[in-house]
Amino acid sequence: MSMPTARDPAFRTRIQASFERQGLMKTLGASLLGIAPGAVEIALSPGPAISQQHGFVHAGAVAAIADSAAGYAALSLMAPGAGVLTTEFKINLVSPAAGDRLVARGRVVKAGRTLTLAQAEVVAESGGQEKLVALLTATMMTIEGRGGVAD
Amino acid sequence: MSMPTARDPAFRTRIQASFERQGLMKTLGASLLGIAPGAVEIALSPGPAISQQHGFVHAGAVAAIADSAAGYAALSLMAPGAGVLTTEFKINLVSPAAGDRLVARGRVVKAGRTLTLAQAEVVAESGGQEKLVALLTATMMTIEGRGGVAD
Amino acid sequence: MSMPTARDPAFRTRIQASFERQGLMKTLGASLLGIAPGAVEIALSPGPAISQQHGFVHAGAVAAIADSAAGYAALSLMAPGAGVLTTEFKINLVSPAAGDRLVARGRVVKAGRTLTLAQAEVVAESGGQEKLVALLTATMMTIEGRGGVAD
Amino acid sequence: MSMPTARDPAFRTRIQASFERQGLMKTLGASLLGIAPGAVEIALSPGPAISQQHGFVHAGAVAAIADSAAGYAALSLMAPGAGVLTTEFKINLVSPAAGDRLVARGRVVKAGRTLTLAQAEVVAESGGQEKLVALLTATMMTIEGRGGVAD
Repeated sequence: MSMPTARDPAFRTRIQASFERQGLMKTLGASLLGIAPGAVEIALSPGPAISQQHGFVHAGAVAAIADSAAGYAALSLMAPGAGVLTTEFKINLVSPAAGDRLVARGRVVKAGRTLTLAQAEVVAESGGQEKLVALLTATMMTIEGRGGVAD
Repeated sequence: MSMPTARDPAFRTRIQASFERQGLMKTLGASLLGIAPGAVEIALSPGPAISQQHGFVHAGAVAAIADSAAGYAALSLMAPGAGVLTTEFKINLVSPAAGDRLVARGRVVKAGRTLTLAQAEVVAESGGQEKLVALLTATMMTIEGRGGVAD
Repeated sequence: MSMPTARDPAFRTRIQASFERQGLMKTLGASLLGIAPGAVEIALSPGPAISQQHGFVHAGAVAAIADSAAGYAALSLMAPGAGVLTTEFKINLVSPAAGDRLVARGRVVKAGRTLTLAQAEVVAESGGQEKLVALLTATMMTIEGRGGVAD
Repeated sequence: MSMPTARDPAFRTRIQASFERQGLMKTLGASLLGIAPGAVEIALSPGPAISQQHGFVHAGAVAAIADSAAGYAALSLMAPGAGVLTTEFKINLVSPAAGDRLVARGRVVKAGRTLTLAQAEVVAESGGQEKLVALLTATMMTIEGRGGVAD
């Protein structure tokens, strides 16, 4: 797969600034690992503050970083001034979310004018190995010309 | 629709205790509003700590309460000692998640031996009115006889 | 739930004509049972020509009538001249699709300017009783001003 | 990605025979293109008999070949005697389904004891080029010891 081209040379700065405005990412303790055209990675450390009842990371927290990674992957290919909104996503949880660190890897599957299809896989890193935890597929919408909805 | 029957008379106590073990619900500030056989409600107050970049509640936080509401609705119909795990869910976000309070209303669509289909709608309450924000559909798995995965 | 209002008084005629252009519906042997504002029903008779390997109706055929029912429910609320396209759907198959007749009941959950959220449940009728077979959730897109994509 | 290992040396014969029992595949005119451990391809020729109202291939027919390709990819890794059932799938339709030929490429993402996560991409071939039409994600269930549900 060839790497797609960003339409806004400032896409990294915009995504970094937008991520910092996501209060939930700070509350969960998530961090932005990497940004490339059409691909964004977000990391999260498992712990009791983001757990479900059996001690694994809650599906909602897994979904949150996967959704942000997929959404910012979509935003990385949008024009300057555009905003991104998630219209829907689906996530399959294939292994318990636990380990040293979770990493969500978002990438654009198909960028359209209004809708962008993106995926994110979430892996758990433990003792130098990684394991697939979840797979998310999302439809992202490009918002243009609506005040308050940029980036 | 007739109300389904709980197989475990202690289902309310089990769900309450399980909810309190979900660290993420406390971190988000979510609370358990109501429990009935096959139906569970969870509330969440919008605020900067759970926001996305435009100030709305992050889709991951909306998904978290919807997933917990659907999962506990499923658990309410399971046998004593069983545990519930989400295997997959899909959520459509139809309006920006904002307002005085979000309420996720989970209910069982079809309870099976291994898999239960559940839905949760999330509404935003504002000034005495409510508006649909999101609709989640989830497949929940019944776990029996696996240590550490109860309730 | 109050019944929504159709914006095009000719919606029934348009849906009937559009359904007749769906070659797949004729090939499957599906028929249009009913049309109301925001709600459309389609029927299908199980048989070897639409089966999967165990003799049940193939998930693709179940999905086809559910998708058409949901899509026409969405179209029933659109303006004259608009066309409807499915952008994505998700379907849960909760019982084997078999019986005297399958009926897909589509309804609009939320009609938006560009995107409409619709659901369809598919039931199997057998000996006077009905049973839930599948539940579909779909995002439908309103197409305006694009030649060849009307209704 | 290393190729997974089939547990049943006769998996190709079983899948071929199972495919021939899928009446819907014959009715749609679909054919089995290739079978490998964890990966199955199915082809379909666009035409009026499988169309929706605008002349494209109906989403239900696209979903049918994608579901069969994903399901047989899952079956290819199952033990002798096991049967496969689709419990749910989600499909995003990113381009109109048209062209000389559609090809659905199913592959296993994660094979579990009870549930297998599989994906299928559907491409349209036209004039020697191919274009992504749809992406399906499915949860397949392994059925063992239930009469009538094998392969």
